[in-house]
Parts: sequence; structure tokens; C-alpha cells
Amino acid sequence: MTTPDTKRILITIEYDGAPFVGWQRQENGASVQAAIEAAAEAFIGVPTQVAGAGRTDSGVHATAQAAHIDVPARFDANRVQQALNAHLGGVPVTICSAREVPDTFHARFSAIGRRYLYRILEQRQKPALALGRVWHHRQPLDSQRMHDAAQCLVGHHDFTSFRASQCQAESPLRTLDRLSVERVGDEIHVRGEARSFLHHQMRNITGTLALVGAGKWQVEDVQAALVARNRAAAGPTAPPYGLYLVGVDYPDLD
Amino acid sequence: MTTPDTKRILITIEYDGAPFVGWQRQENGASVQAAIEAAAEAFIGVPTQVAGAGRTDSGVHATAQAAHIDVPARFDANRVQQALNAHLGGVPVTICSAREVPDTFHARFSAIGRRYLYRILEQRQKPALALGRVWHHRQPLDSQRMHDAAQCLVGHHDFTSFRASQCQAESPLRTLDRLSVERVGDEIHVRGEARSFLHHQMRNITGTLALVGAGKWQVEDVQAALVARNRAAAGPTAPPYGLYLVGVDYPDLD
Repeated sequence: MTTPDTKRILITIEYDGAPFVGWQRQENGASVQAAIEAAAEAFIGVPTQVAGAGRTDSGVHATAQAAHIDVPARFDANRVQQALNAHLGGVPVTICSAREVPDTFHARFSAIGRRYLYRILEQRQKPALALGRVWHHRQPLDSQRMHDAAQCLVGHHDFTSFRASQCQAESPLRTLDRLSVERVGDEIHVRGEARSFLHHQMRNITGTLALVGAGKWQVEDVQAALVARNRAAAGPTAPPYGLYLVGVDYPDLD
Repeated sequence: MTTPDTKRILITIEYDGAPFVGWQRQENGASVQAAIEAAAEAFIGVPTQVAGAGRTDSGVHATAQAAHIDVPARFDANRVQQALNAHLGGVPVTICSAREVPDTFHARFSAIGRRYLYRILEQRQKPALALGRVWHHRQPLDSQRMHDAAQCLVGHHDFTSFRASQCQAESPLRTLDRLSVERVGDEIHVRGEARSFLHHQMRNITGTLALVGAGKWQVEDVQAALVARNRAAAGPTAPPYGLYLVGVDYPDLD
């Protein structure tokens, strides 16, 4: 809750996940959240918390993570964006936009949707320029088969087979609003949209769909993995560096 | 010239220029050429020279540099590609293709065209994911004005105004076959094609066209800079990390 002397600002954030332990502040290394909090403290003058829409794992990128921050009322949103960016010069984190929101808004609890993109690069040789930005897959993948298999995961399901063993969510039930697989040049793009995701859900789904794309699994095997409600029944976890948080959706704030 | 026991292989190479002093082997740091020569020596067993189609500066990237290498006749092109890539695991350099060519072929002297792409990212805040891959330009750029201004540079001209002072070419005369400027989303792409380029020619042209795009120069000022035949008459040198060597053309080898 803001005070009469503060206002709440919603920011969207782009970052290269490679040098970070993830979004969330941790004892064991540099996090995106801590970098932004340090930048905020540098221009506000007091310790300042940044509340993210959700965590991303170490190595996972974002083109549009969302977070809110409470700042002294004398700062407007544009000033907050510029000041944060000025203090984020040394790290691959950029505040892409900032806007004032009501003090009842919360970046995590107000969110009604999260959107992820998983990039797979299908070519024989390792990438040079895209290294660390895509999952490199040497074998050809059939994106249409992957898309077909993905459709059984769309909707309201128990995703126990696709959640990390350390997932802290109380329920394994989630509603996937969209899961599409599309070839874009040499890349295969897996896009997922849901109100919220379980830990590793997008990476476990992608690792499983890749088995279908490579012809090792049939389309029906994904349905069988889902109903098994057992992590061991699904495919491996795709690596973090192919995953991008590309958007967080909120109800109309205007 | 190859011997009866060797064959000549043409390779195309993708690299991230960031960690290198440039293509050319130098005393003062790691070069792309030296990395490939070390990989070649590792699988052939003797010191092996790699002859590139041309130099690229420190920080300049390539999606399709070309080079040739003479290998023992028992290796075929596919084997050469796989062996080089196996030994290039630790650096962002990848051999994208390999084919046998006649022993009269030379990667530099047989080339009939070089193609470059210069990427400018136009947005207020610094990029996070594209850091080191584009020239970040905060002010809006008018790509159509840049394209219009570029057209006076197409053709056969004395490019003294656009060559580096340390350029070692005997003549400042070059023929630009194409110079186009196009907006692609938030980026502005400058594409240049010529049989050969002078040192810094693409970067000096891009730095000059950016002045036109920003409204600081008129379209006609580029023509005036060209005819001045004086480096000081043209604009600044654009940074290396926005530049990509995207192709080297040869006469039909089949």
C-alpha cells in the first residue's frame, strides 16, 4: 500500500538472463530484482522494494517482465524510468516503460495473464551469434506434429507431470489458454499463455514436445504423460536460455 | 596452390565479433582466423593456414564470412566442417558450410562481391538483449531520407571521404553496387554490396547517413562530402558492433 507521500509505478523490464541467478533476489548471486532495487535506492535514497509479476529461472530472458515500485510522490513515471535506466548502465537490464497505477494494483496479484516464448534453433552446427539465446537442436523437428501434440495440453488440467519437483504452488491445476508451435525460418517457436504457470512448466512442456517433433514420441504420448500426473512420465526439461517472458497482462487500468 | 596430396576447401563462417581483435591474426589478442587455424591444426596435425575473403574489424560480426583451407586429400568437405566445429567448441565461431573448390580458387582474390548489413536500433532506452549486436540510437531516424541520401554513393566513386586514415588500399576508387536503408520494426538496416570495400567504408557511410536520418544533415550534404574527397568532410565512424559481414560472392563454381 502506498502512503500519501508515495505513488505506485508499474514498470516493464527487458533483460538478458545469462548473468543472473534469476529474477528473484537470492543470497547466492546477482538477481534482476536486486539490480533494479539497487538502482531504485541509488536515486530515491532509501532501500526500495520491487515486486515482480513472477519469478524467472536463472538464464531465462525477458522482453517484458512486469513489476511495481513505490516511489516518492514527487517523481513521475517518466522520471522513474529514466533514473532507473541511468543506474542500470552496467547490467543487461532495461526499463522499457513506466506508468502510474492505483495503489490497489499489484504486479503479481493483479496479473491476469503471462505469455512465454520458447525459441528452438534447428540446425546441424552450433550457433555463434544466437549462442545462449536459443535451444540448439541438431535433429530436424516436425513443428506441425509438435503443434498437434500441444493442443491436448490447452485448457484446465492437472499439470503434475510438467511441474518441477521443487514447485511451491499449492495446486498443480492450471489453465493453459494457448500453446502453439510454429516454424519461423530455422527456428521453432513455442508460445504459451496462461493466467499463471507452474515452476518449469513451459520448459518441461517444450522438452516433451521436442520428443514428438523428433519422432521419438507419438502425438498421443503427450496426452498419456498428462494423465499420468507423474513428472517421470513427461519429457526432459528444456534448457533455460531458450525461454523468454514476453508479456504480463493486466485488466484495463484506464 | 594445392599439392597432389591436398585439396582446397571453401568454408563459410559465422562469428560473434565481440571477443576478438577482428578476423585477422594479430599479436595483441584472439582473432577469428587464429581460432580456426588452431582448430585445423588440432585435427590435421600440422600448422594450417586459413585464407579469408577479407578482414573484419574488432567487434564486427559475420553471418557468412568466407575462407579457404588446404587439407590432406583424405578429408572430404563434410569431414572438415565437422572436425573444425568439434574443435571450435569454446569460442563463438561456427563453420556453417564447406565445399571442395578447384586449386585455382582463392577466397580473397576470386571473390566478386561482399555484402554487409549494418543494424541500428532506434529506441530511447538502451537495449538489454541486443546489447553489442546493434548501434543504439536514441533519437528518431528518418530511414527514407537516409535511403535517398545513400543513392548518391551508389556507383563508381572516389571514396576518400569514407575511408579510414589507416586504410591500406592503393586506390580510393570503389564501385558500390547497392546501398539501401530500410526500417525493420524498431531497427534501421543499412545494406551495402560491392566487389570490395575500403577500410571502415560501411561504418563511415552509416555514421554519415545517421546524420541525415537525425535531420542534422540534408540529403545533399552527403553528395558534398563525397566530392570533397576528405575524411573530415564526412560524418563519424559508426561503432563496429552493429556491422555484419553477411555474404561473399564467387563466380559459379560448378
